[in-house]
Amino acid sequence: MSERRVVAVLGRGLVPADTPILRADDLGALRGDGIFETIRVWGGRPWLLAEHLARLARSAARLELAVPPEATLVDLVDQACSAWPRDAEGVLRLVCTRGPEDGGEVTAYATIAPVGEAILRARAEGVRVLTATLGVPATARPDAPWLLGGAKTVSYAVNMACLRWAAARGADDVLWTSTDGYALEAPTATLVWLDGDVLRTVPPERTGVLAGTTARHLFDRAGEVGLRADERMIRPAELSTMDGVWLASSVRGLVEVRAIDGAELPARAQTAALRKLLGFS
Amino acid sequence: MSERRVVAVLGRGLVPADTPILRADDLGALRGDGIFETIRVWGGRPWLLAEHLARLARSAARLELAVPPEATLVDLVDQACSAWPRDAEGVLRLVCTRGPEDGGEVTAYATIAPVGEAILRARAEGVRVLTATLGVPATARPDAPWLLGGAKTVSYAVNMACLRWAAARGADDVLWTSTDGYALEAPTATLVWLDGDVLRTVPPERTGVLAGTTARHLFDRAGEVGLRADERMIRPAELSTMDGVWLASSVRGLVEVRAIDGAELPARAQTAALRKLLGFS
Repeated sequence: MSERRVVAVLGRGLVPADTPILRADDLGALRGDGIFETIRVWGGRPWLLAEHLARLARSAARLELAVPPEATLVDLVDQACSAWPRDAEGVLRLVCTRGPEDGGEVTAYATIAPVGEAILRARAEGVRVLTATLGVPATARPDAPWLLGGAKTVSYAVNMACLRWAAARGADDVLWTSTDGYALEAPTATLVWLDGDVLRTVPPERTGVLAGTTARHLFDRAGEVGLRADERMIRPAELSTMDGVWLASSVRGLVEVRAIDGAELPARAQTAALRKLLGFS
Repeated sequence: MSERRVVAVLGRGLVPADTPILRADDLGALRGDGIFETIRVWGGRPWLLAEHLARLARSAARLELAVPPEATLVDLVDQACSAWPRDAEGVLRLVCTRGPEDGGEVTAYATIAPVGEAILRARAEGVRVLTATLGVPATARPDAPWLLGGAKTVSYAVNMACLRWAAARGADDVLWTSTDGYALEAPTATLVWLDGDVLRTVPPERTGVLAGTTARHLFDRAGEVGLRADERMIRPAELSTMDGVWLASSVRGLVEVRAIDGAELPARAQTAALRKLLGFS
């Protein structure tokens, strides 16, 4: 990749990527007390920006975080995109933290980086996942809003640890399960499966999993390829009997799950049509 | 408070507190992918530094994070302490993140801030706590190392949300409970209680709660005041029948729990002797 990382900071504009921008007492760094969205940049534009900003606003509400007005965030994203090569795909992160502990405004920035090899490989070959417990009963979080279920915070240490754990075992990703045996989501992606002519995912309101913007976009268009869309709970063993299993996320798009705990799953003819619905081809 | 925040950054030395030190792609900020210790500074020295560095090393191992050698971290802490007024108590945070996503060394810094009003009030008046589920069964985490039980990461968004939730309900702190009804810990403190002549806490190895350095220090010296020390599981309702309930943490020291879910608990004569054991008076 020859593209260079772009960084745009609210109140400061574009800065070289190696410029320090966060203070030692920024609560994003001290406490993981911030929220973010990962957005695909393609053709010089942020994909599904409105949907991502809507989810950011929901995350902000759950954290009682006073993020800048939407128009300000749109400007920030535009500023970053303007410095990114139009013909290159990029991974944009929009981050808002609670700002300095000693007081002051929230910290907001957008950064765009090249699409890494692991993403390209996942798109081409699918992913091999291992199930791993998230340590929570499936429906424990919605009644406990202090657990921030459904909020996309920067407190991703466990998400990252899960991916390292999978990689150390030769896998590409993790499928989190509840202590009562249900499939939930992946650390950075939404679980999607096909059951006959119904495309399904795990109900976010009932489980506290993150409501996926990419999965939502796909489900809203499922009718165009003759499918219905629905939510339900499922166990990993049932997943293996379905007509297709995918992980949906903003930058990878829709990638096939090709193995669960070492048990192979076939490639699926529907993948191409579903990706086309998403605008990925 | 007239003390000003001190910041010392590895490889850079002392910098003014408002100096940006972390890049936009620092994984501490992007992913909460870092670890920390909070240490009391008193008389110009970091209290229980060796114990905190030992715990930092355990956290680093769980996150597979290559932190700087202990001597380097000691120098960093000393550098920060040297700039802090000897006669002022301070709150030191030692933070190590995985560093820039684009590659490079870990980020390490130490920052000292004044002891806030809430801490002084908790020491003087104790704390009123609300129980709140952490969403996990009591013993779910130790068998799932990817959940980072016992590691002190900067991914504290939920810890902070719990404290906001309590404050909004007129309480000072939270006592996390497991989904199966056991008391676990507070978002930034260890639960300690007195049962006859036995001082007890929740077993960290069995539950994945953070092993408290302050509680450990207290337990190691319990014999000096004629008490034994032990670990066991307990339910919040049982706590109310004990001979004292406290939260132990590095900067607050040992503070009395004066109410659980609105049910008052009496002040305890033993608090002074236990604090003296800790070197807090």
